[in-house]
Amino acid sequence: MTQNIYDDPEFFDAYSRLPRSRDGLEGAPEWPSLRALLPPVARARVLDLGCGYGWFSRWARDQGAASVLGVDVSERMIARARSEGDDAPITYVRADLETYAPPPGAFDLAYSSLAFHYLDALRPLLGRIYEALTDGGSLVFSVEHPLLTAPDRPEWVEGENGEAVWPVRRYLDEGMRRTDWLAPGVIKQHRTIETYLRLLREAGFTLRELCEWGPSREQIAAQPEWKKERERPFFLLIRCSR
Amino acid sequence: MTQNIYDDPEFFDAYSRLPRSRDGLEGAPEWPSLRALLPPVARARVLDLGCGYGWFSRWARDQGAASVLGVDVSERMIARARSEGDDAPITYVRADLETYAPPPGAFDLAYSSLAFHYLDALRPLLGRIYEALTDGGSLVFSVEHPLLTAPDRPEWVEGENGEAVWPVRRYLDEGMRRTDWLAPGVIKQHRTIETYLRLLREAGFTLRELCEWGPSREQIAAQPEWKKERERPFFLLIRCSR
Repeated sequence: MTQNIYDDPEFFDAYSRLPRSRDGLEGAPEWPSLRALLPPVARARVLDLGCGYGWFSRWARDQGAASVLGVDVSERMIARARSEGDDAPITYVRADLETYAPPPGAFDLAYSSLAFHYLDALRPLLGRIYEALTDGGSLVFSVEHPLLTAPDRPEWVEGENGEAVWPVRRYLDEGMRRTDWLAPGVIKQHRTIETYLRLLREAGFTLRELCEWGPSREQIAAQPEWKKERERPFFLLIRCSR
Repeated sequence: MTQNIYDDPEFFDAYSRLPRSRDGLEGAPEWPSLRALLPPVARARVLDLGCGYGWFSRWARDQGAASVLGVDVSERMIARARSEGDDAPITYVRADLETYAPPPGAFDLAYSSLAFHYLDALRPLLGRIYEALTDGGSLVFSVEHPLLTAPDRPEWVEGENGEAVWPVRRYLDEGMRRTDWLAPGVIKQHRTIETYLRLLREAGFTLRELCEWGPSREQIAAQPEWKKERERPFFLLIRCSR
C-alpha cells in the first residue's frame, strides 16, 4: 500500500506553503509544458488522479469540461479541494489509487500530476485507466524524472570546479526510495524511463509525446537561481492514448 | 559534416583492440539485448548503417538474410569488412550517413549500432531510413545513452563515501561534445531521450521498445568490475517501425 504522506501534518503543512500549493497551476513551472500536451478539454469528461487541492479539476471546469472527477487518497487534500467548491461538473472522491477503479469507458482524458511515482503498483492502475478511457482517449501525466528518484540522497554535490553536479546513483536498480522531502521518510518508487514506457505499452497505451522537463531559458532569466536545474531534467511528462 | 574519427590512425588502432572489435558481437555486452529487439532476420533485406568491421552484416547473412547492405564512412572499416568476405548476399558501400540516401522501399530492417550519436544531422537521415523501409519495416539501433553524452568530462567521480558517482552535467543543453575517448577530440552529439523520440516521431516512426541498457546481474557476476555500470545506463537501444 502506498504511504499517504499528504495526511502527515508536518508534510501537509510544508506542502501547503509550496508555490504550487499557494498559486496553483501558475505556481508550477512545468505547467505550461504539461498543458501543451493536453487534448482539448472543452466538453471532455476528465479524470484527475491525485487531484490534491483540485487546481487542475477547477481549471478543467473553467475550460468547459463536461465533467471532472477528482480523486485523491488524502483526506486533507480532498477536504481542501471541496472547500474551494465542489459543485457540478466537479466531483471529488477520496480513494487510494492503488486500488481505485474508475468507471469503464467513462472518460476522454485522464490526468495525473506528480502522483504515480508514489505508487507501488502502477501497472494495475494503468490498466484500469486504460479501461476507463474511451477509444482515442488520452492519458497525460507527470512524474519526478527518474534522475530525481534514482539516488538515495537526491542532493547536488560540488564538482571539481565548484559547479553543481547531480549525482546519478542506482539508476538501474528500481524500487523504493526513502527520502527526506518536506518531512522525513517520504517513500517514492524509482522507475527508469524504459519501465514507464513498458508499463504503458503493456497496459495498451500508445506513446504520443515524452518531455524531459527543465526550466526554459525564459524561466531562468526570471529566476536565475534555477540555472542549475538545466543540468538534468526535473520532471518527466508523458502523453499517451488508448 | 560528421567527424570521421575511425580513419584517424590512433583512434582506429585503439578501437581495433576493444573486445567488440576483436570478438565481434559476442564482445559487445549489449548485443543480447539489442538482438532481442530484432525482428526475424531470415529472408529479410537488411541495411546496416555504420557497419564498421561488418560483424552484424555477417551475422545477418548467417541468419539467412536475403540481402545485406553495409554502409560506413570509414575507409579503413570498409576495407577491413571486405577483407572478411564481401560475397553475396553482402554488399559494402563507403558513404557518409549525413548524406547517404539508401534506395527507397528496399529494406525490411534497418540496423545501426553506436553510430547515430556521432551524427550532426540525424533527423534527415531518419527520414531517409523511413523512406528506405517497406511498410511494417523496422529500425533497430543503439546509441550511447544521453547520460553518457551529456557531461563535458564523462568520468566517474568519487562520492562522499568513496563510491563511484556519475556526474550528470548539461543534460538539457544539447549539441556537440568533444571528449577524449581512444583518441583526443572525439566529437559526439548529445541529444536527450525526448529528442531521440521526437526525431523518430517526426520522421514517421512508431516507437515499439526502448531499453536503457546496463549490464545484467549475470554479466556482473562474470565481470565484477562492471558493478558500477548499473549506477546509470550505458546505452540506449530502440526498436521502432514504419
